[in-house]
Amino acid sequence: MKDFEFCIPTKIVFGKNRVTEVAGHAKDYGSKLLLVYGMSSIKKTGVYDKVVTALKKEGLKIIEHPGVKSNPVLSHVKKGISLAKNENVDMVLAVGGGSVIDESKAIAAGACYDGDVWDFFEDKESIKEALPVLTVLTISATASEMNNVSVVTNEEKKQKFGFGDDHFYPRVSVLDPTVLYSIPANYSAYSGVDAIIHALEGYFTHEDRWLPIQDRYVEGIVRTLMESTDIILEKPDDYEGRATFMWAATLAFNGLGTTGVEGASVPSHMFAHILGAYYDIAHGAALSIIVPAWMKYKYKENLKQFVRFAENVFDIKKSDDEETALAGINALEGWFKKIGAPVSFKDAGLPEDELDTLADSIIELSELWDIEGYPKPVIIDILRLCL
Amino acid sequence: MKDFEFCIPTKIVFGKNRVTEVAGHAKDYGSKLLLVYGMSSIKKTGVYDKVVTALKKEGLKIIEHPGVKSNPVLSHVKKGISLAKNENVDMVLAVGGGSVIDESKAIAAGACYDGDVWDFFEDKESIKEALPVLTVLTISATASEMNNVSVVTNEEKKQKFGFGDDHFYPRVSVLDPTVLYSIPANYSAYSGVDAIIHALEGYFTHEDRWLPIQDRYVEGIVRTLMESTDIILEKPDDYEGRATFMWAATLAFNGLGTTGVEGASVPSHMFAHILGAYYDIAHGAALSIIVPAWMKYKYKENLKQFVRFAENVFDIKKSDDEETALAGINALEGWFKKIGAPVSFKDAGLPEDELDTLADSIIELSELWDIEGYPKPVIIDILRLCL
Repeated sequence: MKDFEFCIPTKIVFGKNRVTEVAGHAKDYGSKLLLVYGMSSIKKTGVYDKVVTALKKEGLKIIEHPGVKSNPVLSHVKKGISLAKNENVDMVLAVGGGSVIDESKAIAAGACYDGDVWDFFEDKESIKEALPVLTVLTISATASEMNNVSVVTNEEKKQKFGFGDDHFYPRVSVLDPTVLYSIPANYSAYSGVDAIIHALEGYFTHEDRWLPIQDRYVEGIVRTLMESTDIILEKPDDYEGRATFMWAATLAFNGLGTTGVEGASVPSHMFAHILGAYYDIAHGAALSIIVPAWMKYKYKENLKQFVRFAENVFDIKKSDDEETALAGINALEGWFKKIGAPVSFKDAGLPEDELDTLADSIIELSELWDIEGYPKPVIIDILRLCL
Repeated sequence: MKDFEFCIPTKIVFGKNRVTEVAGHAKDYGSKLLLVYGMSSIKKTGVYDKVVTALKKEGLKIIEHPGVKSNPVLSHVKKGISLAKNENVDMVLAVGGGSVIDESKAIAAGACYDGDVWDFFEDKESIKEALPVLTVLTISATASEMNNVSVVTNEEKKQKFGFGDDHFYPRVSVLDPTVLYSIPANYSAYSGVDAIIHALEGYFTHEDRWLPIQDRYVEGIVRTLMESTDIILEKPDDYEGRATFMWAATLAFNGLGTTGVEGASVPSHMFAHILGAYYDIAHGAALSIIVPAWMKYKYKENLKQFVRFAENVFDIKKSDDEETALAGINALEGWFKKIGAPVSFKDAGLPEDELDTLADSIIELSELWDIEGYPKPVIIDILRLCL
């Protein structure tokens, strides 16, 4: 096990009909807040009204910053920072999913900094101070509600950068599973894919790992995410299904599963980001196409861990290791299909003749993200496995 | 899943030869500290010298409070509180195992309170403030280094009380697996038993639970504790074995495995405390006697969960559920035997004719601890299964 430091100071408030409790916690951090949210969905579901009413009841002054995009963009982050500075808010309250929370974190840091907030993302400057961030989670997948990561896209520079900083940990995150009831089936499925891939980020690192705590933690989370997704798709308002999914998705990427793990393994986000940039495809859908292909390309380099995956996540045990590994990959792919997530370009209706252009963009991103081992022929081979 | 709140603000510093790093962290909390430790073992192992040298190098003033007993007693806690108050220390640094950390937490709260610290344990008063507690862990088992619990014995009133309070979370805990190399085999085995039983505290609560996150988390931890204990007993200075055990023991009882779980299940500590009070027997050894007996008495009331335990911890699957459950219990008992932990009064050389007296004391404790469902005949039956 590698040396590590671990601390998640975020307070999780979890349970049925608890969204209004955020107001009581917000009061601990001041009297004026920037309310950050996305488009109209929190108004449709009633979460907006519940939260705003509760905040007003506590005497909190609300400055609104709506319109966060599903990949938060720097220009909108900067608008939020100006608002936060001009209005002198005490904290940032994110009501939404990963994008809203990521943008809120960037605003919280930018509001306490005189320079350009992008300096932090380019690692030119380190965060010295940030406003407290509180969150009400309305869609599970990224675990941003309990981790220190923020990902923002600089539209001008065409860069999508993310990084972790301890100032980014939310102080309080309210997780109310009933809020998820209205998420449509396809997005529930994509959330499942996304959370599973997050959980696996540190799982396939190298052949000779002996990390039984982390491996079993991840395997348990992945099995649970699949089981609970199945329940949710059958019955969208199943409380236990939604609650289990919600807590598992948070635990999938809050850092505990990678304590002591050297490096990260699955570079699927690199591929998926480019698919998302080129085509109108949900992030989870891009992942369900990319990940099985990446696995099929890579499993021989790390056979033991892929065998372990097949055995411990899918109870598959064949006489031959390679067969077992492949059966595990097929089982994951089969599950993606079952929940309605695409597993090929064909499934998603993507053009099959632009692989070369895609590969060039993926290479560019791999350089920005410092991901090694993906020269163009490898990328093309992996993309071909996606067709 | 039950509603819950969850927050562990403790910073874990984990890794090889890192005990001296506690000094740098201590500096963040002031300039004068109360150094709390047990008997001579940390001097023999060299941990004392390393820590004290590092603290002095950072210019920290040290007030010593040695002599913590393996079940910390109130009179010694009070001595520590007087010292802390008279010397006006800024923080408490625990160097030791669960007992030393538990006493340090009580001192930290008592030092900021004008009344009797026992008021907190009797729930007459709530903690408003406490000194920061930092820890250097030298024996794993209780997870006190990452939880909010303190257990102290009031010798006068003959009460052993424990409770959780968020002021008790250590600010920083240094976990250096190399420190564990010198722990003798029997104590390594008892640590394994203790940590496993802690992990199971929320596992056998009721028949119709569907808590896949928590169950899998616990099952993974228990398997890992057994595997790593086996390695340690074979090779006491196996770094990976010690590191894996150390982190697993902390995760076994830091509260994550019981998030959303209603109630606690295994009242084994109630029995074990009384055995410990009557006879000169290590806590882990008392647990390895009690737990299999308790399981054999109780498994029929919660058959499904005992079947799950057998299947997921020991890969046992028989045609009959009752057979499977019993085989799981026997497998755990067998593993206790294998690592040299006693599983009967006979094994431990305890007298077999004092069950009645023991039962009376256990009843008294069950009343103090508010544990229901254990009238005298039940206790006697369970104790008989221990013979």
